[in-house]
Amino acid sequence: MKRKLFAAGLALTLSAGAAGTAFAQAKPEVLVKQRQAAMTLQGKYFGPLGGMLKGAVPYDANVVARNAAFLEALSKMPWDGFAESTKGEKSRVLPVAWTDAAKFKQAQDQFQSAVTALVAASKSGDEAKVKAAIGDVGKNCGSCHDNFREKQ
Amino acid sequence: MKRKLFAAGLALTLSAGAAGTAFAQAKPEVLVKQRQAAMTLQGKYFGPLGGMLKGAVPYDANVVARNAAFLEALSKMPWDGFAESTKGEKSRVLPVAWTDAAKFKQAQDQFQSAVTALVAASKSGDEAKVKAAIGDVGKNCGSCHDNFREKQ
Repeated sequence: MKRKLFAAGLALTLSAGAAGTAFAQAKPEVLVKQRQAAMTLQGKYFGPLGGMLKGAVPYDANVVARNAAFLEALSKMPWDGFAESTKGEKSRVLPVAWTDAAKFKQAQDQFQSAVTALVAASKSGDEAKVKAAIGDVGKNCGSCHDNFREKQ
Repeated sequence: MKRKLFAAGLALTLSAGAAGTAFAQAKPEVLVKQRQAAMTLQGKYFGPLGGMLKGAVPYDANVVARNAAFLEALSKMPWDGFAESTKGEKSRVLPVAWTDAAKFKQAQDQFQSAVTALVAASKSGDEAKVKAAIGDVGKNCGSCHDNFREKQ
């Protein structure tokens, strides 16, 4: 396994000079798998917060703080996976993600800002503020999916 | 999408009192997908570090620091996905993960400690120390896979 990991590292980092482009050389199907993994985990850690916002489950400030911190890392992970090389891969991403790259980037940035605000709110001890921040993250998830993901 | 996320949140958090058990109620196939997603992303962010350790790609302290921070979050994410309810799901986990749960937990803890040490090393500016820490994380990946994952 270690050999496989190291080989993957080599493939991923060849011709990678800067952090932002470090994964541009990975195989398209690997990039898709990785970006979908980040979305899966965003769902894992946002899901319970959505439940709290709806009042369907008891509010738990510790879970919010932990999940918000996880989401802060996860919110940065999917985007380099939407490389041009992945256009032909099976996935639900809409072509507009590339034809209007600026709009897609803006949606990513807004989502990340909403998550950063949730992290800050989760440290405030103010439940109303936390719930507003959860709602804002959820809106960003939804609008980005509405604009850039195929309906099922 | 938002409705689906909220419904997932509800399913995930029903009867969840503590952070550690917050996801115990998720469907087994969802738990497997989520734990595999965490492993996929560990591979994404550890891979390039393995390449640096081998000298196959240039050492880049910024990439190390970023990836180490991501790995710190990711190193905490897979484990609640190995719930007893997932025993019947298709995956490569070996039965020993449940028959010797203490050993599995120890392997998880050692991996997390190795990642925490890598984060500390990445802040030291000491390349030799960083590379030793990368090697230690890699050893932990490998030994946990050797002991708890089916060979392919």
